[in-house]
Amino acid sequence: IIGVGMTKFGKHPDKTIKDLAREATWKAIKDANVDAKDIGVIYCGNAVDGLLSGQEDVRGQVVMREAGLAGKPIINTPNACASSSTAFREAWLAIASGLYDIALAVGFEKLYVDDTAKTTHALATCTDVALEGNMGVFFPGMYAMEAKRYMLETGCTREQIAKVCVKNHKNGCLNPHAQIQKEVTVEEVLASRMIADPITLYMCSPIGDGGAAAILCAERIAKRYRSDPIHIAGSGMASGVFLEIDIDREKPNSTELAAKEAFEMSGIGPEDVNVAEIHNAFSPAELTFFEEIGFCKKGEAPRFAEEGRTDLGGSIPINTSGGLESKGHPVGATGLGMISEIVWQLRGEAGKRQVKSPKVGLVHNGGGIIGGDNAVMCVHILKR
Amino acid sequence: IIGVGMTKFGKHPDKTIKDLAREATWKAIKDANVDAKDIGVIYCGNAVDGLLSGQEDVRGQVVMREAGLAGKPIINTPNACASSSTAFREAWLAIASGLYDIALAVGFEKLYVDDTAKTTHALATCTDVALEGNMGVFFPGMYAMEAKRYMLETGCTREQIAKVCVKNHKNGCLNPHAQIQKEVTVEEVLASRMIADPITLYMCSPIGDGGAAAILCAERIAKRYRSDPIHIAGSGMASGVFLEIDIDREKPNSTELAAKEAFEMSGIGPEDVNVAEIHNAFSPAELTFFEEIGFCKKGEAPRFAEEGRTDLGGSIPINTSGGLESKGHPVGATGLGMISEIVWQLRGEAGKRQVKSPKVGLVHNGGGIIGGDNAVMCVHILKR
Repeated sequence: IIGVGMTKFGKHPDKTIKDLAREATWKAIKDANVDAKDIGVIYCGNAVDGLLSGQEDVRGQVVMREAGLAGKPIINTPNACASSSTAFREAWLAIASGLYDIALAVGFEKLYVDDTAKTTHALATCTDVALEGNMGVFFPGMYAMEAKRYMLETGCTREQIAKVCVKNHKNGCLNPHAQIQKEVTVEEVLASRMIADPITLYMCSPIGDGGAAAILCAERIAKRYRSDPIHIAGSGMASGVFLEIDIDREKPNSTELAAKEAFEMSGIGPEDVNVAEIHNAFSPAELTFFEEIGFCKKGEAPRFAEEGRTDLGGSIPINTSGGLESKGHPVGATGLGMISEIVWQLRGEAGKRQVKSPKVGLVHNGGGIIGGDNAVMCVHILKR
Repeated sequence: IIGVGMTKFGKHPDKTIKDLAREATWKAIKDANVDAKDIGVIYCGNAVDGLLSGQEDVRGQVVMREAGLAGKPIINTPNACASSSTAFREAWLAIASGLYDIALAVGFEKLYVDDTAKTTHALATCTDVALEGNMGVFFPGMYAMEAKRYMLETGCTREQIAKVCVKNHKNGCLNPHAQIQKEVTVEEVLASRMIADPITLYMCSPIGDGGAAAILCAERIAKRYRSDPIHIAGSGMASGVFLEIDIDREKPNSTELAAKEAFEMSGIGPEDVNVAEIHNAFSPAELTFFEEIGFCKKGEAPRFAEEGRTDLGGSIPINTSGGLESKGHPVGATGLGMISEIVWQLRGEAGKRQVKSPKVGLVHNGGGIIGGDNAVMCVHILKR
């Protein structure tokens, strides 16, 4: 990775997906010191613009024409909230194939359309609509059921979940790209409006807009562009194993599958990771994903959070960007936003939220839910 | 390519996208003699189901769960009418990367929803909706304008265009997978309802449903599965150069760019191609694309058609399947349907429409239109 860039996440009523994608793209191009004409292939992640602006299908071509990159091969990779991690992974594969030397991955999303019901409906299509989305099974409810079960099985308390949310909001205050830059207390989190028990308003990622991008290149030419390229040491991807047919969870779920693939490919273990972004669309999920990635044993995550081990100064800082709850979650841009954060951390460019000399970072980005498991899961391990 | 499979294209009111994708997938798996568990990665092409059934985003995961292939990495590749050629190309890149040995590419589409306006609107989103689709600039009109200009520039007549349509319908009668199996005469074509002058009803691809799939594998293991694997000799992909800013067409358009890339990669020229499928969503486009691919000089295509040189027994048979007008055009399935046809031709399995011992076949599949050029163009050259 020789370049990254992102817009501020937030409500941008004056910007279209074209504006958001163009800004992120050109920030990444400048960061990479590449000539735009040398980009061989472009992967574009966007989740729900077909339902929100009516732009189906050729979203990548539409935004890239606006960005001045018409003519190149453009592949759209919608994969719910993991759309831009998918774009990133496909860009990596395209370079690995030998056909391309330089690839652009870009994600963009405009969720804020001044009609929460419309946005909420669009997001609900990241399920099996015939069996779930159209029947009212929706994300806050699904994550809440997961959290309830987790609390029952492990004894995790509401206060412990709230601590995750407090930590993330604290980090978000240090991130100029974050949508919500406001500290909250455990009491405030628990007193905020109940959305789907045990998930309260502050535990939910907000609706917002944004763009994020990365420039990848073949390893042999990376130093032409930057002295500090970031290496992709491992990449794992899985679709859900759909837990309703495996209620006792004897099979690994999508996070476990993707993390295992990424760790095995990299020869790196969870104990070697110095900083990670975890897909916390809702606060309790940070705890379960933390365990599934392998950072600790089942049931230990709440204690890690409580003891501050996932704080900025802790042994394994999680969501230094503020995470989805505080940094924001314009879904198609989220994965590349997480990748940008880890790249900045590894380069030592994360400003006030900089972790001390991290060598290895991990990005965990999931999308959609079908039958109780994430429909898509991507895990990337990045190395200085 | 070690396996292909497709459903009959046509109106399938009793089938969902799940049914169509499952049927095509398992036909291809059986044709390839692979064990489904050995498939490493899955690429899914679908264009407009988000607007038609409401299934956005995780369409591939939804249909592959139904097909019994949950858990694997699944990437959605919507790219308008070239969605499944995009899936095919990405599967090829994924294998070339060395990460996967066996990949499935599948396309599926359900356009027939008993509401032509709804389908027509969904297809119109394969443009820049803010500048074109929502303003009423739509595919029959765009192809008609292109045809008018071509007629003006070359002297091509309505009768010559109608001959293309007659030839394709004749081929379609020999294809059990074709939606329309009915011969038509030049007089009938010209007398059929005017849609957008000079395009009459019979010159338009019909609305229909379908699925198509292919199994690709690394060359070194192909003979484990079949004695007659088909080689992907060249692949080209481009997005539109958007002609409105280049009215004099000094720059090559997307077909020219993609064909050039595919020919150069393969070391094969247009003169070596024995059979080709060309994206004739509307009859006149077969003539212009035929020229842009390089099968003849500009303005010569109508004579080729008139003299029967693109007929089944001709020097370069085009659209032996019946083409989009007769075989049908369930857009997300179209590219892999074309690839299936060429694979069957190269294997000598095309039945009554078999071309004599072809060695090299070409597949040209485009999608969307932005600013007067196809938003996506894929050209693949396949070899026995």
